[in-house]
Parts: sequence; C-alpha cells; structure tokens
Amino acid sequence: MKSKELKVTARCPIRTTTELLGGKWKLLILFQLAPQGLRPSQLKKLIPDISEKMLIQELKKLCDSGLVVRKNYGEVPPRVEYELTSIGHKIMPLIKEMRNFAIEYEKELNINK
Amino acid sequence: MKSKELKVTARCPIRTTTELLGGKWKLLILFQLAPQGLRPSQLKKLIPDISEKMLIQELKKLCDSGLVVRKNYGEVPPRVEYELTSIGHKIMPLIKEMRNFAIEYEKELNINK
Repeated sequence: MKSKELKVTARCPIRTTTELLGGKWKLLILFQLAPQGLRPSQLKKLIPDISEKMLIQELKKLCDSGLVVRKNYGEVPPRVEYELTSIGHKIMPLIKEMRNFAIEYEKELNINK
Repeated sequence: MKSKELKVTARCPIRTTTELLGGKWKLLILFQLAPQGLRPSQLKKLIPDISEKMLIQELKKLCDSGLVVRKNYGEVPPRVEYELTSIGHKIMPLIKEMRNFAIEYEKELNINK
C-alpha cells in the first residue's frame, strides 16, 4: 500500500479508509492539524521522530487525496501552512475511536498480566 | 511497522492502534471474524486477494496481540478455527467509523467531480 499510487474504489469501505490513511504517519499528521493549520516546521516539532523527507511526502499524499490543503500566503520570506479540508475534519471521530480502542486494549492487557 | 515486532507502549493511543491494526489485511480479517469463528480456508474465500502465507502470518500477529484466538478442536481430520477475543470484538466501532468515513469521503469526491 505504501508507495503505490492512491486507489480509491468503492469495492470495500474499510479498504478505502486504510488506503487513504494507511502507514505510520498520516493519522498523526491529521490529528495535529485538527485544531489549526501548521507549517511543516511546526509539524516536525510535534512529531519529532518523522523525517523531514517523510513528512513532506505524507503531506503531499494527504493533499492529493483531498484531506489536507497547502496554503501559500505569498509572503516574503515564504510562509506555507497545511490545513485540514472539510472532509479532512471528518476523520476526527475515527481518531477518537482509535483512542478509545487503545485505552480499552491497554486496560485489558493490564487485567491479564 | 510491518515486520517489526509488536510494540505496545502508552506514549500515544493513535500509535498503539495503528501498530496493532496497521497494514493492509488485519482489519479485513477482524471484520470477517466478527459474526463467527472461521477456518483459514473460509477466510481465504472471503478475502480472495490475500496470499495463504500472508493470511497465516497476519492471523499469528492477531493472536499474539490478543485480538484473535486460535481454536484447535482436536478432531481428525484436524479442524482449526480463528475467533475474535472479547477485546477483538471491541474493534467493531472503529471499523464502523472507517466505513462511515469512506462513505462521506466518496460522497465528497462525487460532489467535487
């Protein structure tokens, strides 16, 4: 799924979503962009273990799939920010469910230890 | 994330969940196991494009992380089934949100076409 081109088909909604959001970073980036638009350097600070190259690559994919938009303010020095689109914002309930699941999972692990 | 050993840390719940469920197949397998336990051959029929090797490998990972349990009925000829554990069942709201998101996303794509 990683470097293949983005396929969006109707065959199965779970696949649509894993193809859009799959990989290690996209959900983390979307989550950081939820409250406000950010420059790449700010994102890098919030997700320290992502490489600059990977960050730019993942942002590009998110823009291509319409979840994020790149804004160039045309200022000097250049100012570029990434923001969620309206459909990008709709990922938040999914992220909330991922969080809920992780909390449940970790509780269960502790019970069984 | 793929072939590394499963790390479950508390540092970020989104990462916990992507590490548990990441990759192309795990969510599809879990979804198929939701209504009932299944033999590997039945799973293969429901997910035709997974290779047998990958199916067994992903089932093993799901067992290792406690989301799925392997049941050997001790019969001759051998009968082995995979079932969701109680925590495995708790992934269903997440899958439902993935479905909702895919439907919203495809609607949005059509509007903008």
